Amino acid sequence: MATNAGGNRVIRYGMTRQLVLGLEGVLADGTVVSSLNTIIKDNAGYDIKQLFIGTEGTLGVVTRASLRLFPEPPERLTLLTALPSYESLTSLLRFFRRRMGSQLSAFEAMWDSYFECALAIQKIERPFQKRHAFYALAEVEMLNPEVDRSSVEGTLADALSSGQISDAIVAHSLAEAKSLWRIRECAGELLGRLAPAAAHDISLPITQMDRYATTVEQRFQREMGGDRIFVFGHLGDGNLHLMTPLRKAEDAPALDKIVYESLPAGSSVSAEHGIGTLKKPWLGLTRSPPEMALMRSLKQHLDPRGILNRGRVI
Amino acid sequence: MATNAGGNRVIRYGMTRQLVLGLEGVLADGTVVSSLNTIIKDNAGYDIKQLFIGTEGTLGVVTRASLRLFPEPPERLTLLTALPSYESLTSLLRFFRRRMGSQLSAFEAMWDSYFECALAIQKIERPFQKRHAFYALAEVEMLNPEVDRSSVEGTLADALSSGQISDAIVAHSLAEAKSLWRIRECAGELLGRLAPAAAHDISLPITQMDRYATTVEQRFQREMGGDRIFVFGHLGDGNLHLMTPLRKAEDAPALDKIVYESLPAGSSVSAEHGIGTLKKPWLGLTRSPPEMALMRSLKQHLDPRGILNRGRVI
Repeated sequence: MATNAGGNRVIRYGMTRQLVLGLEGVLADGTVVSSLNTIIKDNAGYDIKQLFIGTEGTLGVVTRASLRLFPEPPERLTLLTALPSYESLTSLLRFFRRRMGSQLSAFEAMWDSYFECALAIQKIERPFQKRHAFYALAEVEMLNPEVDRSSVEGTLADALSSGQISDAIVAHSLAEAKSLWRIRECAGELLGRLAPAAAHDISLPITQMDRYATTVEQRFQREMGGDRIFVFGHLGDGNLHLMTPLRKAEDAPALDKIVYESLPAGSSVSAEHGIGTLKKPWLGLTRSPPEMALMRSLKQHLDPRGILNRGRVI
Repeated sequence: MATNAGGNRVIRYGMTRQLVLGLEGVLADGTVVSSLNTIIKDNAGYDIKQLFIGTEGTLGVVTRASLRLFPEPPERLTLLTALPSYESLTSLLRFFRRRMGSQLSAFEAMWDSYFECALAIQKIERPFQKRHAFYALAEVEMLNPEVDRSSVEGTLADALSSGQISDAIVAHSLAEAKSLWRIRECAGELLGRLAPAAAHDISLPITQMDRYATTVEQRFQREMGGDRIFVFGHLGDGNLHLMTPLRKAEDAPALDKIVYESLPAGSSVSAEHGIGTLKKPWLGLTRSPPEMALMRSLKQHLDPRGILNRGRVI
């Protein structure tokens, strides 16, 4: 809650902020503020919980909470598609959304560099006969599994015959689904293997993601003598993750400069991981001086002695 | 945005708070704070827009905004069900949610008293042969109209044969759908006809709504010599609206006392309409002293001279 965490199903259920109905928090002066609502709608005065959610413990400490839950769908369908271009990736997302609405519960994009490396690390056989430029791992919540499965298969057939996708795999068992998800979920292992390495978590307009990733890689190679970068992320949320091997840990600030300064207007230096201490120097890049001043003023007002998570965020 | 408005499709799309991506606001000291994001995920520092959303203009004035939009579904299906009891109403909501997931875009409950009065005001012929205790008007977003329509009809047939509903009508044209919605949407006309009258907008646990409405009506009749009350609302959101004819306008405070003091624990005196001036005396009923103190402290900090929407909320 303090970091307003995201994850793979934000496209369906939203960030943590949307799932907190009420909470109890402690302010810097020791006051316990209890707003442990379980009701869905409450416009009685200011929405106090927003001071605690996503502020990384710098305005107060969350001690209890009530969360909104959703019923588990009867079945989930996992599928992996291979795509020839970035344009086909974004157009597939639009197509899936039109066909599946909010039954689409995940849409995770992987650039070829990430995908190949993940297969090697997880020791998974290449699921397609040849390599492709992009991959999308999608999950569909099925309320009526028989009907929905055939509808998804129809959607994939349409995408194949129009050339939007080059190939597709539909998981036919939980084991197959898990194996496909292992490709996407080896980010932690990848970062370990690449060490010394840097990880970035950025938000930017979906249409500009591929050009941006190419720009960062080119500058990294040209200006720092770097190698490839590994790109993947929550495409439906406009959120990319970059993982970059460094020649030495001390190169991190120079890479940060390339990653953050290459962001187009309207981006964010932190999509879901927060600011902490590492991104603190870059907060001002995507936040205007009046926003920074207002954040500082709130911090000063609610924690005048600076005792809450000192040195973080602001 | 300043009132975090709700409406009939909150069950599908959330309150206004969930639909604002970014905004520009003006603080009491004249500072223009621009957070006109269009990205979906942004955890870079404090979420400044929360100070403006739902605070009724008392902490700042919203001057521009960027909103999240969703594609219009290919078709919407409207249906009206008649139910024998309150238990069947809540169980129908659960049943619809299980069968339709987030394709269920509205679920509006009407008590018989409201329903009959609405038919008379709108001059609509009674849609069922006899009167029933409760009615639910539902809307389903159809991505694949042919398949979805037959699936909804199957769901209704199951609900009928299990006795969960007593009768059902599915709109077969836009005109029929509009006519059904006119029953639900005559709240404004009803309030005018009942004048002098009072309207209330409360949130409470769904399981306790019927008992609560009965308690309020009984106390109103016993303690104030009142007549019937008219009950309807957004059942899926836990939000009821009450409309009550008064003998004279001066009776309003006595009725407020009954309406608000009868609320069970964990309720709210304002689900979606805000506090303004009318509910200001009741804010403390569903907000604890530390919450009230924190609201006052924020107001004092951000608007020390009290020039923003003076006298409202806090």
